[in-house]
Amino acid sequence: MDYSDFSITIVGLGLIGGSLAMSIKNRLNPKNLWGIDVNANALDYLESAGIIHQGFLSAKEPLQKSDIVFICIYPRETAEFIRQNMDNFKPGAIITDTTGIKVPLIAEISPIIRDDIDYISGHPMAGRENKGLEFARENIFDGADYIITPTAKNKPENIALIEGIVKKLGFGYVARLTPQRHDNMIAFVSHLPHIITAAMVLNPIMEKENLYIGGSFRDMTRIAHINSDLWVQLLLDNSDCVMEHLKVFEDNIHDFKKAISHKDQSRLKFLLAKACKRKESLDLSVDARNKSGK
Amino acid sequence: MDYSDFSITIVGLGLIGGSLAMSIKNRLNPKNLWGIDVNANALDYLESAGIIHQGFLSAKEPLQKSDIVFICIYPRETAEFIRQNMDNFKPGAIITDTTGIKVPLIAEISPIIRDDIDYISGHPMAGRENKGLEFARENIFDGADYIITPTAKNKPENIALIEGIVKKLGFGYVARLTPQRHDNMIAFVSHLPHIITAAMVLNPIMEKENLYIGGSFRDMTRIAHINSDLWVQLLLDNSDCVMEHLKVFEDNIHDFKKAISHKDQSRLKFLLAKACKRKESLDLSVDARNKSGK
Repeated sequence: MDYSDFSITIVGLGLIGGSLAMSIKNRLNPKNLWGIDVNANALDYLESAGIIHQGFLSAKEPLQKSDIVFICIYPRETAEFIRQNMDNFKPGAIITDTTGIKVPLIAEISPIIRDDIDYISGHPMAGRENKGLEFARENIFDGADYIITPTAKNKPENIALIEGIVKKLGFGYVARLTPQRHDNMIAFVSHLPHIITAAMVLNPIMEKENLYIGGSFRDMTRIAHINSDLWVQLLLDNSDCVMEHLKVFEDNIHDFKKAISHKDQSRLKFLLAKACKRKESLDLSVDARNKSGK
Repeated sequence: MDYSDFSITIVGLGLIGGSLAMSIKNRLNPKNLWGIDVNANALDYLESAGIIHQGFLSAKEPLQKSDIVFICIYPRETAEFIRQNMDNFKPGAIITDTTGIKVPLIAEISPIIRDDIDYISGHPMAGRENKGLEFARENIFDGADYIITPTAKNKPENIALIEGIVKKLGFGYVARLTPQRHDNMIAFVSHLPHIITAAMVLNPIMEKENLYIGGSFRDMTRIAHINSDLWVQLLLDNSDCVMEHLKVFEDNIHDFKKAISHKDQSRLKFLLAKACKRKESLDLSVDARNKSGK
């Protein structure tokens, strides 16, 4: 497909927005690629590097001429941005976002969205432990999963258009999920690991001892390096799912404690072997999906 | 230092023993490098690849002529091997091991060790999630930490000899810890993460849903792929330290649950920001140590 007639705007040029800009410029090559940000330096940089055609501190002008708008800011700011700019979007425009939480966002936006624009929520599964434009790279999405959470309001051809675009940007697999399934799954694969890792490194031993660590500890604690402002929003906006998964997790920790304190070798081996098998199954299904490209 | 007069034996040629054999052969080049294993195929392979000079199914002959013996089998089998072969070691030999748990092992071996041999316990911090000789590589130790847990019985020149050897094998930093500090630290940096990860993947959602995952989930669950026989020994032999760290961890999880269920934004931000700072401090101190080489 040819995208040379499209005008695209990216709102928020941090890690995700900046990486999207680089990938869109080089792989989609639209007629216009504009950026909106509160940070004039970021816009200057991207303009002078030839990544965006023009940067704007004020949203109205680029939005009025944009066929597609990628909003790459925090969840609550995303809702606020769409609400405030409802009159500015071009008739027929597709608006999408990249936030990691869907149910409350869609519940807020869906009732107020104009009939002549299509809001299709999306989630690139490609975060990093560092934030900001300086960590943005064209290739961070290569092979990653992209989830979209369409609603009955969305036009099928627009959903297909977004799917085609993110494939072209390097994403490996594009999944369609309901907002509820998205939030429940993300609570498990992303929110839970971040809480667990944070809870682990809050042990006072981290400050009292020289720790000699292997690869496993470094890998596991990578995500303790967190953007706390963003994550407060993500965890509180998804609190029901998060609390539910924490409950299951705590029950499993309790099983381990029981087996260890009772010196129950066979129970402990059973739990470890079952966990190992689960991990093997996960890797197999992920690899199979990546191979099939579906 | 020149190691061309040394005869060295490695007991157990799996991931660690096999990797040590490759590294010792190429980087130390001793007069003799022998291997002992119950698996004749592993010995044949290493012999025909020119990595060991000779393999033995029976321990007596190589032990009687070895200046240094690396024991690379499970913790309980290590104690049993040393006990059974006490009469076979060469006078003046240095015996070392590579197990991840020290207090019970040293408590068992120390009282029975002959006066004319020196048992210096060690722990290469370089495990992998896969076991066996097929995953052994010469370079898996490059830059990793090596912990030794000397006792008052050990001769200073022998401790220095072991330190010199492991540096030559590629390890970046060699630390001396008491067995107690080793076990407590390892309970936190290794045993706790393995339990936490296993408890996480035991959530039934792993089997019920197609999971779309980012890098963080893959990194974090890598260590759920576990050798359950080995890990039953490690966790039960270090159960006091493990239970203590699990307690602190559970308290921290409880703090997060409280903040999330009360929608307490400032408390949640405080916890996340503190965790992030702890991780940054850890990375800084590890990097500084690696640079200093101490």
